[in-house]
This record gives sequence, C-alpha cells and structure tokens, in this order.
Amino acid sequence: MFTIEKKDDKTSARRGILKTAHGDIQTPFFMPIATKGAVKGVTPTELKELGAQIVLGNTYHLLLRPGTELFKQAGGLRGFMKWDKPILTDSGGYQVFSLGKMRKIKPEGVEFRSHLDGQKIMLTPEDSVRAQLAFGSDIIMVLDECAPYPCEYNYAKESIELTTDWARRCKQAVGESKSLLFGIVQGSVYEDLRQKSAQDLVALDFAGYAVGGLAVGEPEEKKLEVLDYTVPLLPEDKPRYLMGEGRPEGILEAVKRGVDMFDCVIPTRNGRHGHLYVGLKLDSFDKIEYKVLRISNEKHREDFTPLDKDCDCYTCQNFTRAYLRHLFVTEDYLGQRLATLHNIRFYMRMMERMREII
Amino acid sequence: MFTIEKKDDKTSARRGILKTAHGDIQTPFFMPIATKGAVKGVTPTELKELGAQIVLGNTYHLLLRPGTELFKQAGGLRGFMKWDKPILTDSGGYQVFSLGKMRKIKPEGVEFRSHLDGQKIMLTPEDSVRAQLAFGSDIIMVLDECAPYPCEYNYAKESIELTTDWARRCKQAVGESKSLLFGIVQGSVYEDLRQKSAQDLVALDFAGYAVGGLAVGEPEEKKLEVLDYTVPLLPEDKPRYLMGEGRPEGILEAVKRGVDMFDCVIPTRNGRHGHLYVGLKLDSFDKIEYKVLRISNEKHREDFTPLDKDCDCYTCQNFTRAYLRHLFVTEDYLGQRLATLHNIRFYMRMMERMREII
Repeated sequence: MFTIEKKDDKTSARRGILKTAHGDIQTPFFMPIATKGAVKGVTPTELKELGAQIVLGNTYHLLLRPGTELFKQAGGLRGFMKWDKPILTDSGGYQVFSLGKMRKIKPEGVEFRSHLDGQKIMLTPEDSVRAQLAFGSDIIMVLDECAPYPCEYNYAKESIELTTDWARRCKQAVGESKSLLFGIVQGSVYEDLRQKSAQDLVALDFAGYAVGGLAVGEPEEKKLEVLDYTVPLLPEDKPRYLMGEGRPEGILEAVKRGVDMFDCVIPTRNGRHGHLYVGLKLDSFDKIEYKVLRISNEKHREDFTPLDKDCDCYTCQNFTRAYLRHLFVTEDYLGQRLATLHNIRFYMRMMERMREII
Repeated sequence: MFTIEKKDDKTSARRGILKTAHGDIQTPFFMPIATKGAVKGVTPTELKELGAQIVLGNTYHLLLRPGTELFKQAGGLRGFMKWDKPILTDSGGYQVFSLGKMRKIKPEGVEFRSHLDGQKIMLTPEDSVRAQLAFGSDIIMVLDECAPYPCEYNYAKESIELTTDWARRCKQAVGESKSLLFGIVQGSVYEDLRQKSAQDLVALDFAGYAVGGLAVGEPEEKKLEVLDYTVPLLPEDKPRYLMGEGRPEGILEAVKRGVDMFDCVIPTRNGRHGHLYVGLKLDSFDKIEYKVLRISNEKHREDFTPLDKDCDCYTCQNFTRAYLRHLFVTEDYLGQRLATLHNIRFYMRMMERMREII
C-alpha cells in the first residue's frame, strides 16, 4: 500500500509511492482543497495539467450540501465532480469546531447546528465514516477532537481518550472497504499525551497516521518540537500526514522530519486574494526561497514580464503581470482563476523539487 | 474586404467572409463581449475552442482602466489579453450615455464624469478613434449619439446631424490605418431620418455600417419595422451590424433581413446568473426553438443528465445538471465559468446553424 523508495541522506525525509484504489501517489505530496466538491474555480482537467495527484474534500460541507444520499447516485464525489484520481476526505470534525454553532461533544459523537440553516445535527464516528464511504473516498480520516491551542493538560488528556475511542469505532465502521483509514494523533503540546495517543492508535493498526492539533495557532518552535517527538512515534512503513500545514517553510520542515502528506487552502485562497507565490529556489532542505507578490499593487501596472519566468503554468506562459493586475483591479474573476492555477502549480513544483532532492 | 458567398433563397440573409488584419470571419457572426479586456472568467484559449471568431472590447471601460497609453507597450488589446484573432471596439459613446455621470453633448464631443472616480473627461470623435487605434482594433466604430427610446422627432433629427459630422471626423482621424471603420446609422424610429442618416454615411464611404439606436427598449414590432426599411438603405457589398441585439429570435429576424454582425452581453451575463440556453432547434429561418434553464432550481438537484445532450462544449461533455446546480448553490465561481462557456458555445452553434441554412 505504501512503499518507501528512497530516504534522504541528511534528514528524515523519505520519497515513496502511496497506492490507492484510484491511482498511485508520489510522496511527499500536497493536496489542493476541493472544499465543497470543487477546487474553487478550477476544472478537473486543469488540476491534472497542474500535476495534482489527489484532492481533499470537506465532509462537513458535503454533508450539508448536497448531502450524502446524492453521492450514491452521482458515482461518489469523484463521479460528481468528474475527478478520476484519488480523493481524501476529512472527518467533518474540524469544520464542526470552526463553523458549527452550539456544538456539544458527547461520548457518542458531536452535536452541532449547521452554519447554513441552524439545523441540529449529530455526527458520530460511524456517521462520518458512512459519509466518507458514500463519497467514495480513497483515504478516510477518523473523527477526532482537534483540541485548540492553548489547551490545558487535563482537557487534552480526556480529548485523546475520546479520539482513540472514536478512532476504534471508525475502524469498525469502515469494515472491508478498500478505502484507507487514517488515525489522527492528538495530545496538544504534551509529549506524554502525544506518546499515549500514538501508541493507542498504532495498536489499532491504521493504514496511515495524521498528526492533528497543530497549525492551530501555536508558536512555530512549539510545532517543530511536537513534530520532533511525535513523528518518530509513527510506524516507518505507513504514510504520515500533517493536517493543515500550508506554508512552504512549514511543509519543508515537516518533510525533513519524515512527513509525507499535506493539505491547505493557502495556495487557492491566497490566489483568489491576488497573493501570488513566485521565485521558488529549493536546492536542498537547508533553505527554501520564494516571494509572495501582491498582484494588485500599482507597481505591476506596466510590468509586461510574466508572473514567474521559471513557471510552466498556463498563466505564466501566456500573461503579463500588468494584465493580471488589470484583471484584479477590474474584478474580473478570470484573475482569480489564473492566480489560483499559478499558486497550485507553485505548490506542485515545490513538492516535485522536494521529491527530487530526496 | 467583404465577400458574399451565398444568399438565402427565401430571405435576405447572406453568408460571407469578412477579411480583417488579423483573420477572416465567417458571416453572419456573433461577438462575445470582452468588456474590460477579458470575456469575464474565460481564457482566450477557451474562446477559440468555443468557436469565437472575434470579440468586442468596450472603449469607455478601457479608456478609464488601464488607459490608452498602456496599450502601446502591451502590443494593443490583442497583445494585452493574448487574443490573436480580430477585435472590434465600440466608440465609448454608448457607455458614456449609460454609465457616465453629468454628460454634456457638445459639437466637439461628449463631456462626462467617470463612474469610477468622478474625473471629468472629454471624448471627441478623434479621441475615440485614437483610443481604438491604440487598442489595435480590427474594426473601429465611429463615435455616435445613441438616441434613447422614445425620442422626439426634432431631437432625433439634430442627433443624426451630429452623428454624421462626428462620423466624418472619425474617418479623417483613422487616416491610412488598416483598421476597418464602421459608420452608425441613427434616426430613432423615423423612416425619413434613417434614410437621411444612411444616405449621408454611405456618401462618406465606410468599410461597414451599423444600425444603432435599436435594442434600447422599443417594442419588437417597431424594431423590425425600422430594420425593414433601414437595412435596404445600406450597401449590399458591405457588412451590416445590428448593435446590441442579443436575443436568439432577434438575431434570427435580423439575419433574415440581411444583417451580418451581432454582439451582446446576454450569453455571458445570463451564464453568470445561472440562466442557461439549451435545446437549440433551428432548421430554417421560419422558427428557432430553445429553452432557458435556471440551473439553481431545486428540480435539477438530482438530475444527472448533461446540461444539453446535443452540445459539444466542455461543460456538457463533462458535468451533470446536478453538479452545475451544486456549484451555483454553493457559490463556487467554477459554476459561472462552466455556464458562461456553455452559453457562448450555444450562441456560436446558433450562428453556425444560420450559416449552414443560408
């Protein structure tokens, strides 16, 4: 299911292949976010041209609209959005905590009100798995409680017990499905809790393991410290996923520590806001260089050079900074589109570089 | 420059080829609107795939942003937006009347305040031509006064005199350029004024002639009546352009009367609003059938059929009505994009059908 092909000489980085029901994925990799069943503004044809190997769908959003039932007729999420490569879905838990109103965590699951219409919904671990199976996800995440930062020790301790219990129930619910189920290690910034969480999950034997509860506002050093002691707790021969980390330097540090999978809205959301990633320099794991260009800035008004002369995306191959700026200033969504394409390509190129370096 | 290849047996419709500096255009044709230097949300590559032969840019918008100067460095509007086929630009007059504030019509030109920042601007016939030459337009329209409907006889009479005078000045301003300059017949709904306007313009000898001042709110029968007596006043061997008519049945009626060129925001604007043109049936000039589908409607929720089974566009070839509806309901601009592509293709197919019928 997961084969490591090469290990880096100087760091814990590794390169490999993750086999899924709908295709192989070169690791380490980054997943663009198809929040509600589409990477905003981008077609599946374009995603493939950009080198995307897999996209991530959000269970919370898809549960509310269009709802699980529809996916049975639509041929799953892949059939619905016409994406013929692998899909990972999250459990829905993260958005319940960030978007859901009046949420109550109970042993059986999490109760919340939809942010759209206030409808009261109970999401159990079994519900989450059933939804993800209906989506036809290649990689399914267990329902977990993503503790906030900062988080008191006792809260974090109870939280990992709940998360492990839910993980066990998710594993039962998945049954004989070909989908790969991933456990999520929690435990906030407490080493003994991370240890306990990892140990209990590994004993349950998942297809892969995520590090959750990071990239939630903790200081950078803290995050690296947690990664430093958590990643080695995870089985060498299983894929490792750092949820929510999206800054290029954050991804680099995690890859160096042996993480294989990433997702984030950064490239797509920043693209829509006209913040464009250019000038990638990445020759070793010692240093990554790049710039974020604000395309609406007056200084690009008469700049007839490409956005990034080293980029092979459609945007850079065809248009000037002056034209992109004009599209943003005149609020034509072609600008958001071209910016999103470029940013996704930047992330794909960055991951390609990392795989080459290893 | 313009060659008529075939005339319809039963109507005044004709099929031909309009040669421009940047390519030949099969007539009759429809021009998608690239208001501010882009067909909203659509790339030039897609426009070509859809069968667009030419796009229309709005001088008023481009004058204000990014301004004429920039186009000299950008390689004209075609270089700026990377469109290598022909471009027609309007004179700017129409938007001065619809968007500009505090406009004053003077013999030398029209004075107005920008709708963006209130800046006072004087647009003379010479300014309009200079701007359109800076854009590198293949077809340049004279500055005219588009009289509103209803319009008193005396107002309309003075207006055509001004329009003819401005047309004469535009012709002088164009000089030896390879761009084709079109005159615009005005005269509201008064046959003798239309006659006078056409006569005076034809005497000035333009590369083509537009019928202006229609599709401004007059009853349908009135419009056809005006077309009935105005089109025969225009030279047989020059292209004829009905400005602003965009309803399929309106285009059909005009083509039957010998009009060759059309433009309208209808396919693109309606696409963005989720109003989609489907079910084209067009076997003769006697009748055109189609439907406008509101894609957000609940009834499409579980409709897994293509938008239009007879359409060859990317949208119809790949996605279901259920998915398109989902994109509109969740406000992903991929929905607007796919809808716009489809509607443009509908108009292109409709014009292709008309050319085949002739």
